[in-house]
Amino acid sequence: MTYKGRFITLEGGEGSGKTTAMHELEQFLKQAGKDVVVTREPGGIAIAEKIRAVILDPGHQEMDARTEALLYAAARRQHLVEKVLPALQQGSIVLCDRFVDSSLAYQGAARGLGIDAVYRINAFAIEDCMPDLTLFFDISPENGMARILQNQDREFNRLDGEAMSFHHSVYHAYHQLMERFPDRIVRVNADQPREEVIEEAVQIIQARLFDQA
Amino acid sequence: MTYKGRFITLEGGEGSGKTTAMHELEQFLKQAGKDVVVTREPGGIAIAEKIRAVILDPGHQEMDARTEALLYAAARRQHLVEKVLPALQQGSIVLCDRFVDSSLAYQGAARGLGIDAVYRINAFAIEDCMPDLTLFFDISPENGMARILQNQDREFNRLDGEAMSFHHSVYHAYHQLMERFPDRIVRVNADQPREEVIEEAVQIIQARLFDQA
Ligand SMILES: Nc1ncnc2c1ncn2[C@@H]1O[C@H](COP(=O)(O)OP(=O)(O)OP(=O)(O)O)[C@@H](O)[C@H]1O
Ligand SMILES: Nc1ncnc2c1ncn2[C@@H]1O[C@H](COP(=O)(O)OP(=O)(O)OP(=O)(O)O)[C@@H](O)[C@H]1O
Ligand SMILES: [Mg+2]
Ligand SMILES: [Mg+2]
Repeated sequence: MTYKGRFITLEGGEGSGKTTAMHELEQFLKQAGKDVVVTREPGGIAIAEKIRAVILDPGHQEMDARTEALLYAAARRQHLVEKVLPALQQGSIVLCDRFVDSSLAYQGAARGLGIDAVYRINAFAIEDCMPDLTLFFDISPENGMARILQNQDREFNRLDGEAMSFHHSVYHAYHQLMERFPDRIVRVNADQPREEVIEEAVQIIQARLFDQA
Repeated sequence: MTYKGRFITLEGGEGSGKTTAMHELEQFLKQAGKDVVVTREPGGIAIAEKIRAVILDPGHQEMDARTEALLYAAARRQHLVEKVLPALQQGSIVLCDRFVDSSLAYQGAARGLGIDAVYRINAFAIEDCMPDLTLFFDISPENGMARILQNQDREFNRLDGEAMSFHHSVYHAYHQLMERFPDRIVRVNADQPREEVIEEAVQIIQARLFDQA
């Protein structure tokens, strides 16, 4: 699959500032005259929403970790095909809040299925549509969680309640992934004031995507 | 995963006589004093039933072939973990009407995703729980379809309506799978009167599973 646009994903632990940064980056890119699509899985895609409902149903306590990983990959595939790829083919910059690396870190590492095994089923799901650039928002799990706990508006979800050791596994996995995909994944120091985080992210995007074009 | 039971799957095209044979084999094995569990995916497993409902929803015309293959693998995983493996661990003989080879033949070959690619996601789903024995009910697609069309009771499903070329792809794929897994998959000549088909299947099961025990 070849396309004109650029596919940028935002990754990191809970409270690392991905969603905050995505909206700021959207504004910056629009002001720079770019077509921008922001999304996150399942992204309003009917089939992906239904798959997500099966994953998140609190009655499904007996859900096996491999079943869950396959369902995430299925929802990812459908969101990619119906929403991300058409936008990329029209030349848009797509900003996606979490993508394949989240499965590698959460299901592969923290849930213990193995990064390689989870990578293989995701490679089936996304074929050659890996992101052009992935921003990793690097902040210690403690500091990320502290931000979330300060924010009363945000709902506390299942993953926030995991033991800190789980969040440390995720954090460690993201660092492994940076080593594994050094050309794709770029670290942003997320433990800075908001303006500085955004500035760093903007500079990475400019250097990596615009200066070459 | 080690277990005491035996895992037997029944495979073949539409109308090849799998379901008919499964019930006859169940009677034979019970009369021989064995514990037998007969099943087919999704097998009444709540999560697998919900996944199946997403796959088969007629409103989901936009379902991508890879999404579908991942959903089949997810439902297979959950049915395996909740129903097949516990029965095998208790020492039962499990007879399963269609399993991984159906995905390889239908999604892998006939839908064009590739047998190897579909095998990889199924290997993730089932780990090392491949069947101990697979009976392939071999009959030409024309003769299999003719049986179905004669039977007024049976509902005509989506796959029956596929072009004959689709059924030929499936048939050819099963022959490829026999070559690839010669120790596991054994051919039954399904183009014979019912009693002879059952007799052949019984002899294969006796030779392969009982004589060694
Ligand atoms: N640089 C920053 N400094 C301090 N607080 C921040 C910063 N960036 C974001 N926040 C605040 O931290 C909280 C978490 O940020 P945000 O929701 O963007 O994180 P996230 O990575 O999307 O988290 P999640 O993985 O849970 O979706 C929010 O209350 C947000 O306003
Ligand atoms: N050996 C046989 N000779 C003639 N008719 C048979 C034979 N075995 C089964 N049939 C009949 O053929 C039809 C299809 O058989 P059956 O439903 O067992 O096939 P199947 O492989 O399970 O098909 P499907 O893939 O559609 O589930 C039924 O009407 C059955 O009674
Ligand atoms: Mg967020
Ligand atoms: Mg049948």
